[in-house]
Amino acid sequence: MNEFDLIEKYFNWKQANKIELSVGDDCALISIDANYQLATSVDTLIEGVHFPQKTSPADVAHKALAVNLSDLAAMGATPKYFTLALTLPEFDQHWLEQFSSSLRSLSDEYKINLVGGDTTKGKLSITINVTGTIPSGQALLRSSAKVGDAIFVSNTIGDAALAWQQIQQGVNPSMKLLRQFNMPNPQVSLGQALLGVANACIDISDGLEQDLGHILDGSDVGANINLADIPLSQELSDHLEKTSDWCLPLAGGDDYQLCFSVPETRIDDLKKIEIDLGITLTKIGVITKNKNLKIVGFDKTCQSYQHF
Amino acid sequence: MNEFDLIEKYFNWKQANKIELSVGDDCALISIDANYQLATSVDTLIEGVHFPQKTSPADVAHKALAVNLSDLAAMGATPKYFTLALTLPEFDQHWLEQFSSSLRSLSDEYKINLVGGDTTKGKLSITINVTGTIPSGQALLRSSAKVGDAIFVSNTIGDAALAWQQIQQGVNPSMKLLRQFNMPNPQVSLGQALLGVANACIDISDGLEQDLGHILDGSDVGANINLADIPLSQELSDHLEKTSDWCLPLAGGDDYQLCFSVPETRIDDLKKIEIDLGITLTKIGVITKNKNLKIVGFDKTCQSYQHF
Repeated sequence: MNEFDLIEKYFNWKQANKIELSVGDDCALISIDANYQLATSVDTLIEGVHFPQKTSPADVAHKALAVNLSDLAAMGATPKYFTLALTLPEFDQHWLEQFSSSLRSLSDEYKINLVGGDTTKGKLSITINVTGTIPSGQALLRSSAKVGDAIFVSNTIGDAALAWQQIQQGVNPSMKLLRQFNMPNPQVSLGQALLGVANACIDISDGLEQDLGHILDGSDVGANINLADIPLSQELSDHLEKTSDWCLPLAGGDDYQLCFSVPETRIDDLKKIEIDLGITLTKIGVITKNKNLKIVGFDKTCQSYQHF
Repeated sequence: MNEFDLIEKYFNWKQANKIELSVGDDCALISIDANYQLATSVDTLIEGVHFPQKTSPADVAHKALAVNLSDLAAMGATPKYFTLALTLPEFDQHWLEQFSSSLRSLSDEYKINLVGGDTTKGKLSITINVTGTIPSGQALLRSSAKVGDAIFVSNTIGDAALAWQQIQQGVNPSMKLLRQFNMPNPQVSLGQALLGVANACIDISDGLEQDLGHILDGSDVGANINLADIPLSQELSDHLEKTSDWCLPLAGGDDYQLCFSVPETRIDDLKKIEIDLGITLTKIGVITKNKNLKIVGFDKTCQSYQHF
């Protein structure tokens, strides 16, 4: 099968939004409404590095798009379109069908169009470049945290890191943990709801300490957070009672929850967001003038995720 | 070195255009002028597949961006920004310095901003997603060729294919051939000049036969082209006299010249474009109602480039 047939068969589905021109010319053509900015981000997932070998094609597709949608969520952007660069070791119809079906399902859920791509032969790797729109000047930046802001985290963190640790140790994680690791839910609706409410925002992809650190560096501030307030699943909570391995929620990546700072005057708005979206938002600390990140109740150092 | 230091050191240069927010947040933020559309395209280059092992980092960077700029050229778009997903086997300062310097040089030449990226560890691979802008409704499509249009090709084709053939045979290509192969010049200015002049356009990346075929399929037409009219370099011309391997210019890829169709009434406009841009444009045939691609003077079949 040549590349054009492959694209036609697996990646040329009916799209969610009206796009002027999609798969099938040199470029896709897209119009943007006046008064909106583009938000764009790219992430690569490589087999054996970002997901274990033999991960199902459905999970690979989901995660590859979800981690990119999470970057849009962290800016408060509305997903609009994405491109896919797919490197495959061989042409495998069964694999492609499952990959394509899962990718389409998540695309439909978030109303984002696949507008172009490239397929090449090599070690399995997926690069997605996602683009969203946002009312001009309203994006949630890393650089806008203010001293006195309360720091919040959505839902729970650390489950994906526990799953990854267990996989590396040859232990089968529970279905629930594995789902958190393989099929993260990007917090797109939350990001949109935080426009005009939060001051700064980031998604937790490399671990809370490192990602919150980017907000602190970007905003030239510090933070005090309370270990006891970090929201955990029951399973992780039980695990920490036995092991005290607090580096899982502090430095474990792959959660794709949002960490954001909110001025005291807007905290009441979060209650409505929690109810509307059926999620939990937990205050874990406060932005300080002192530029350190202080974790009250924790005196160890965790190894952060290093790309090289 | 962690990913953030690497990006800061090698990929955070002063940009050509004003972009609201570039490298260093979850997404880049970009504004688009009213009455313009976006044109976006993605291409992956893998070591050993799209360029030989031990290709210099400067050539790799040039080619990775150039092949993407060529897709913008084929639509008549003006380059605006790109993202880079770079997979590297190891952190190699010397390699990164040369790669970064070459990438910056081509970016500056075409006034295109690097707005975001991802670096991962693995087999050397470069995915670039390029975005340009184009006055709404004016893009040069593959689907707009009309019966009677003259078919043109820019400059000469086939040199890159000859270089690649020689490399595979263990022969060192001439400096000139190697330059055509490693450092193609995307025809961005030509694409822009063809807005309102050409009916259909494509860049020749997979070979003239296959790429012109996309115009014919997209426009539901055919073409007669004359073998003797195909523009060749002196070196390729000498080579064909000895070997008659006409599949080099007909099916060899990597030229990144433009192939376009022009109504008879606009052919005079091409003279001025040739002079203004210092390039040659050669008529090689005509669009026909009969839906075949007939190559007058050639009765063999070439093997087209297959991605799988």
